[in-house]
Amino acid sequence: MKIDTIQSFIPPTRILMGPGPSDVYPRVLQAIARPTIGHLDPAFMTMMDEIKVLLQYAFQTKNALTFPISAPGSAGMETCFVNLVEPNDKVIICQNGIFGERMKENVERCGGIAVMVEDKWGAAIDPNKLEETIKANQDAKIVAFVHAETSTGVLSDAQTLCHIAQQNNCLTIVDAVTSLAGSPLKVDEWGIDAVYSGTQKCLSCVPGLSPVSFSERAVNKIKRRQSKVQSWFFDLNLLMDYWDKRVYHHTAPINALYGLHEALLILKEVGLEKSWSLHARNYRAFHAGIEAMGLSFNVKTSERLPQLSSINVLEGINGEAARQHLLLEHNIEIGGGLGSLAGSIWRIGLMGYGSNMKNVLTCLGAFEEVLQDMGAKINQ
Amino acid sequence: MKIDTIQSFIPPTRILMGPGPSDVYPRVLQAIARPTIGHLDPAFMTMMDEIKVLLQYAFQTKNALTFPISAPGSAGMETCFVNLVEPNDKVIICQNGIFGERMKENVERCGGIAVMVEDKWGAAIDPNKLEETIKANQDAKIVAFVHAETSTGVLSDAQTLCHIAQQNNCLTIVDAVTSLAGSPLKVDEWGIDAVYSGTQKCLSCVPGLSPVSFSERAVNKIKRRQSKVQSWFFDLNLLMDYWDKRVYHHTAPINALYGLHEALLILKEVGLEKSWSLHARNYRAFHAGIEAMGLSFNVKTSERLPQLSSINVLEGINGEAARQHLLLEHNIEIGGGLGSLAGSIWRIGLMGYGSNMKNVLTCLGAFEEVLQDMGAKINQ
Repeated sequence: MKIDTIQSFIPPTRILMGPGPSDVYPRVLQAIARPTIGHLDPAFMTMMDEIKVLLQYAFQTKNALTFPISAPGSAGMETCFVNLVEPNDKVIICQNGIFGERMKENVERCGGIAVMVEDKWGAAIDPNKLEETIKANQDAKIVAFVHAETSTGVLSDAQTLCHIAQQNNCLTIVDAVTSLAGSPLKVDEWGIDAVYSGTQKCLSCVPGLSPVSFSERAVNKIKRRQSKVQSWFFDLNLLMDYWDKRVYHHTAPINALYGLHEALLILKEVGLEKSWSLHARNYRAFHAGIEAMGLSFNVKTSERLPQLSSINVLEGINGEAARQHLLLEHNIEIGGGLGSLAGSIWRIGLMGYGSNMKNVLTCLGAFEEVLQDMGAKINQ
Repeated sequence: MKIDTIQSFIPPTRILMGPGPSDVYPRVLQAIARPTIGHLDPAFMTMMDEIKVLLQYAFQTKNALTFPISAPGSAGMETCFVNLVEPNDKVIICQNGIFGERMKENVERCGGIAVMVEDKWGAAIDPNKLEETIKANQDAKIVAFVHAETSTGVLSDAQTLCHIAQQNNCLTIVDAVTSLAGSPLKVDEWGIDAVYSGTQKCLSCVPGLSPVSFSERAVNKIKRRQSKVQSWFFDLNLLMDYWDKRVYHHTAPINALYGLHEALLILKEVGLEKSWSLHARNYRAFHAGIEAMGLSFNVKTSERLPQLSSINVLEGINGEAARQHLLLEHNIEIGGGLGSLAGSIWRIGLMGYGSNMKNVLTCLGAFEEVLQDMGAKINQ
């Protein structure tokens, strides 16, 4: 590539219906383009306080330690693990998709011991298996799982899983990257101790930040640590002082935070329960269309995420080629499968601003056309 | 704070003349507001390649491993240390400001041994001290230092320091957060092995990303590591695959990268050497005005950063109050001192887009007015 040929980047206009990023609210795009101010400016500090309050609402929590990490969702995951896991801590991880594997990596890199409870990719986590494992590992300190598996489109019963963990004196770390604002998530009521999410799914904000929240029990474990947190950037002892007392830690991503503030404000205006029901309603319409075409879901009805559907690739059809046609001919982005599901599913998202009837109909129409062009036998 | 009172955040219009963030190019603000596309979109991947080429130009390097970390400058620092420092590695850190202290924290959290070479805050790093220390520590593997200390406004002789390190078979980690695009920085010519910077200083992009570059020698050390990198998010073995082969690692901060692409393109249009000389020219004008007022610099002439000046707070004047007046009455943000220099210096930045004659004159005029109002005896 020759440097002299590079020009300003004007992105193509896509409809983002993959597993994220989702289409961003126009109000959020306007917000991030506002002039940058300093991270120690009194006006910025007021905005930081507002983000905390709005995030507490989104997470349904009163946790004081609720704020966005200045990096994407996987950095939020790492923040939870590096702070809560001390060397030799035993952590039970319920895995039913790719992100459980990543949790294991995190635990092991912290010097912890990961005990895996595995469920089929495409099925919800089985609470009975967790219960058996926790009984067999009375020295376990933490239970971690993914609430809404982005790699498969599966919702697990976080409330029951957290209840089992609590009954056995374990803290919980919950991945809510895809669930926040799309499916009911009640941090305090369910007793979640550490939760992380992303901005680029059902919040329909630009990617790059990871909202997190920690219970008092979690904060106590962090404060009582024997060893320093291995990461300086993700050390909550330092980040608490930054978000509470404004002790300089790092330069916040100012404009990205303008965007998160606006996205959370939109969520508040819509209302959290209304947001959940809108995701459910648009999924039902999409579901009806998919079934009418004769396509099938990879996940059973009761375990499906309304915001992200896994559709089985039709026999004889190249799933990746179909995705390319959708993107290049119709400007619609959908996702493929990951890991063991690569090539066998399509992942179609209806998240946040992108969860609307227009997208449902546009996607169904384009999908039908592409599949027909590829010679698939589908209902019309 | 009541959630129902929260409204869209409209930032005040400031002139950012502190130690960063600096005023952002309007073209960058326009770029980040463009519609989000997917991080696996072919159009996005082309843009990633362009960012690499533009960053290689900015860093003056041919290093293949040159890309932005998806988090602010301090995450770039952590990326360098967690990848290059293995447990028990001895690292010599030349410290002459607050960021050397942070390097020590990083080394120790990686299980390394930090050997400190300390210089006065406000003075450049003394190459002789490094040479003595390196001779006395023949088992040292890495030398780390800050090229342009943001906490003091001091430029150190990176070329000489790197030469000493190389002569003694040490790799170098160089903090170029404030130097990139503001002062000459020649990664290949000087033999720097790992360098990190920020977007919010002389690139005049929004804060939130950290450009990094690694030499082949650095990459070899990383590939030969005995232990896994303790951070999953900052693991260059995984990030290399992401930036080279597009193996999914995390969701890139798409819109922030639009901004970095545009800021780097502007740097290319202006020209790197022209950018350095513009910073020098505007500093000279500022310097003349400051001296004419009878104010003095905290750093000796030969060691000053053109993009960031440390001015001694006048006797009898409350430096923090003066900063508040400048911000609230004139909408001009300048910085105060950090650590041992808190309260005794002002830090005034002329960085990137903010390095221009208009800002020089506006700042000098407002500064004069504020100091007079506070009863300071200054030349008029």
